[in-house]
Amino acid sequence: MMTLKNAKILDIFSGEVLDANIIINNSSIEMVDFNCSVEKGKVIDLKNKVVSPTFIDGHIHIESSHLTPGEFEKLSLKFGVSKVVEDPHEIANVLGLEGIEFILNDTKYLDLYITAPSCVPSTNLESSGAKIGMEEIEKLMKLDKCLGLGEVMNYMGVINEDEEILKKIEIAKKYKKVVDGHCPQLRGELLNKYISKGVMSDHEAVDIEEAIEKLRLGLKVMVREGSVSKNIDLLEGLKDKDLRNVILVSDDINLEDLRRGYLINSLRKALKYLDPLDAIKLVTINPAEYFNLNIGIKPGNSADLIIYENFEEFKIYKVMIKGKFYEDLEFKSKKDAKVKNSVNVKYKKEDLNIKLDEGKVRVIKPIKNSLITKEIILDAKEAKKLMEENKINRIYVLERHKGLGNVGKGLVYNFLNKGVLASTYAHDSHNLIVVGNNLDDIIIAIEKIKEIGGGFVAVDNGNVEYLRLEVAGLMSPSLERFEEERKKLYKFIEGWSQFEDPFLTLSFLALPVIPELKITDKGLVKNLKLVDYLIKS
Amino acid sequence: MMTLKNAKILDIFSGEVLDANIIINNSSIEMVDFNCSVEKGKVIDLKNKVVSPTFIDGHIHIESSHLTPGEFEKLSLKFGVSKVVEDPHEIANVLGLEGIEFILNDTKYLDLYITAPSCVPSTNLESSGAKIGMEEIEKLMKLDKCLGLGEVMNYMGVINEDEEILKKIEIAKKYKKVVDGHCPQLRGELLNKYISKGVMSDHEAVDIEEAIEKLRLGLKVMVREGSVSKNIDLLEGLKDKDLRNVILVSDDINLEDLRRGYLINSLRKALKYLDPLDAIKLVTINPAEYFNLNIGIKPGNSADLIIYENFEEFKIYKVMIKGKFYEDLEFKSKKDAKVKNSVNVKYKKEDLNIKLDEGKVRVIKPIKNSLITKEIILDAKEAKKLMEENKINRIYVLERHKGLGNVGKGLVYNFLNKGVLASTYAHDSHNLIVVGNNLDDIIIAIEKIKEIGGGFVAVDNGNVEYLRLEVAGLMSPSLERFEEERKKLYKFIEGWSQFEDPFLTLSFLALPVIPELKITDKGLVKNLKLVDYLIKS
Repeated sequence: MMTLKNAKILDIFSGEVLDANIIINNSSIEMVDFNCSVEKGKVIDLKNKVVSPTFIDGHIHIESSHLTPGEFEKLSLKFGVSKVVEDPHEIANVLGLEGIEFILNDTKYLDLYITAPSCVPSTNLESSGAKIGMEEIEKLMKLDKCLGLGEVMNYMGVINEDEEILKKIEIAKKYKKVVDGHCPQLRGELLNKYISKGVMSDHEAVDIEEAIEKLRLGLKVMVREGSVSKNIDLLEGLKDKDLRNVILVSDDINLEDLRRGYLINSLRKALKYLDPLDAIKLVTINPAEYFNLNIGIKPGNSADLIIYENFEEFKIYKVMIKGKFYEDLEFKSKKDAKVKNSVNVKYKKEDLNIKLDEGKVRVIKPIKNSLITKEIILDAKEAKKLMEENKINRIYVLERHKGLGNVGKGLVYNFLNKGVLASTYAHDSHNLIVVGNNLDDIIIAIEKIKEIGGGFVAVDNGNVEYLRLEVAGLMSPSLERFEEERKKLYKFIEGWSQFEDPFLTLSFLALPVIPELKITDKGLVKNLKLVDYLIKS
Repeated sequence: MMTLKNAKILDIFSGEVLDANIIINNSSIEMVDFNCSVEKGKVIDLKNKVVSPTFIDGHIHIESSHLTPGEFEKLSLKFGVSKVVEDPHEIANVLGLEGIEFILNDTKYLDLYITAPSCVPSTNLESSGAKIGMEEIEKLMKLDKCLGLGEVMNYMGVINEDEEILKKIEIAKKYKKVVDGHCPQLRGELLNKYISKGVMSDHEAVDIEEAIEKLRLGLKVMVREGSVSKNIDLLEGLKDKDLRNVILVSDDINLEDLRRGYLINSLRKALKYLDPLDAIKLVTINPAEYFNLNIGIKPGNSADLIIYENFEEFKIYKVMIKGKFYEDLEFKSKKDAKVKNSVNVKYKKEDLNIKLDEGKVRVIKPIKNSLITKEIILDAKEAKKLMEENKINRIYVLERHKGLGNVGKGLVYNFLNKGVLASTYAHDSHNLIVVGNNLDDIIIAIEKIKEIGGGFVAVDNGNVEYLRLEVAGLMSPSLERFEEERKKLYKFIEGWSQFEDPFLTLSFLALPVIPELKITDKGLVKNLKLVDYLIKS
């Protein structure tokens, strides 16, 4: 038993800040005593510090942190995020249900819920490691930890009444679970149609007018402030509305942003538009109502609390998780995860040949701070010359799940001025993507990826650095090792690319649903059609 | 197709009033067009009239209206209540699951949801017609239309960790459904304990401080404004809090209050404390969030709308239910319900003997406007004398479900100065309760009840009037017939009693959980213990 005496609790139910003693029995809140007279067990005097419930991240892909959930929680809990709704879209593309099961069982303290990924594989323009079909969706819906259907990215499918995607929505409805949406820039009649099919949320609005329309039409508007997309300024347009249907989420988060405070850092940015009490609802009662999660400082609930040094600036004093202070949590130690090697690449050296003798060739031109690429068309000979100057690189995507032997090949403009990079984290199918010009180094990189079971590899003239992500080729089972390896690798590649994080840029070059020219294991994809790099005249 | 053009919609999602065209396709909203440019099918110009979603009554016993749900809906829909959460506690005490099934299938347009009654029978001090045990609770939880566990009245059982009631709560949790509470005057440590076991709402607060404490501890506070209890003034204390966890319900409603406007009449009273936009949330988005019901003016939802002549005073212009205006609805016609006769009374004339020769006797003294009664103790001979003056009446409760032959007998003070009343609507077991002094008339009354299959009967010197409630002895299957018979009956008994509605007062005299002296088929009950009317000296 323990008593947190003289707390100023943030009562998310009544919207007040109230004096109270909080009596904690093991992991649960036993009583909230507004008379401040009951004391049981060890008494800790909070001297009027504000106490709030911990936070919910209503939409995240933990894989984006490159940490397993068991390592991710070490940081998320530190900053008071005790529940996440994970969309295991990435690991599902690699390992299917087996991967999802791993995700579900990897945390010790974090309450990890999932949504069932609705679009695995995303397209038939690429080879994924697994498929989440109707049967798998139904299996997932039966799980208590599965809160709904994951972001329905195939919004044109919904609008055009594609049978398969509508059936998936129907299954979620049958199990009384939510249906998360994903409909960038959708407005008016098409947006109405999309919503009418049962989609309940969206986290893709980047424009204030768009967010307001979605809110008015009854979508839960998830304001996304992550490492890739930063949309906190939507609150400027939303702040005068009823905010109960607005939720703050991360979607993607990297280690730096986790270390900066994760959601609480986003909440600090929200203070530009909202007072702290209203801001905190965006990550507590609002997502809780949507997902039917039980939170708040009330009897019977898990003692998951944030105690503030300074509430107005969201400065944390201590975090309590399931009745224990963060510093007393005993995380699982597991430096090396026992997971199956997901890298199964078959290729022949001649698969890597790129002919630049005659005709014209397509070249992918990545654009800074954007997922979109442009297509440039060059004379093959000119391309060859630019390649010699390292202004153009070879780029390959090798199927790496089932040893199918698929190798997509192409050219990319002005990406690496030196060395070779390889990665098994490449949306959405997470095949092996390799970029660079030296064929010997390319082969070394591929072989190294196979050896370490997936991750990031950099090679320059036979010198190799790597970052192991052996869990599905996406995640590291050790935060400490991850940081060490990452530091060394990124130091090694300093100056190689004009892109701040070339591995991140690389991860989107394989995403075929985004215009204009992308590459998968099946070849180049131009606006959803497979094309060859050589243009036959 | 139909277009409601130039509407001012009350957008419960964003909390705004917005210009829009509403496009309706059959029973559903196809599109909400904020540009007011789309028009499809028949166009109706609303000329800037305000339109809101229809209402939800989050807690009602329809049996209290004495109308079957199919008759009840004729009035509830007229005033814009299109969804009700019915606790079929009354009919379940008579007919068990069979009765609940009847309730679930009797409406045509009204969306009728139920909670599974948690306390049937209420006590072992009375004989009910049926039992809702663990198995029945589980059966009900599997129904989509069952939203949770009904008001857990046995709050001391919860607090004392009674295994059976905790198990019922657990079943509701297993099915991810709500658990409605019922804890009059519960505060502090006991209230904390009650909530910690999983109870989520309460509708019994009558005192502002009590309601505020319940809100702060995370209960959904249902402000009850019904025909029996009127607690709208709780809003005076709640109006400055975050109201998202406050819901307005009726609990019990009679025909007069239905005719006065039902929930919209209660909302009018709420205008003393809240502006119309905030008031309306108490019967729309707030209960919808709690019960996970899908409402609001958004694409895909049922076209259930209230169009206002004057929104500020909640004056209704038209109601639309499932895409049809109220006046165009075609209700089921069913003057005579085919339901089984639930009245099965066995008794012998001598069971009615009450001896007033010697010793002392207990007499029930009902109190105006209260469910509580007092016990008076009199000399038997004095009681006999008072009975001759009609200052004391005989009162009987006859088991009427299974022909068990139980007859509870007693005396009641100053209830009827003339005639005999009999009724099969008597909380909680709804046995046959009879009051009066003329034994011949008493027998006529009992026989008439048997003949009509339950209801209200009045007899005076062999003259009989009655109101048939042949559905479980609780409800009439015809609104028109009910009104006719009720008018005649109440005219007949004018002046017989000091109580405004003697049948209503009578219905609570059999409720053994309320102090001080009550009567069931097993005898008199004094503070939860069976006692005899004769006090042996």
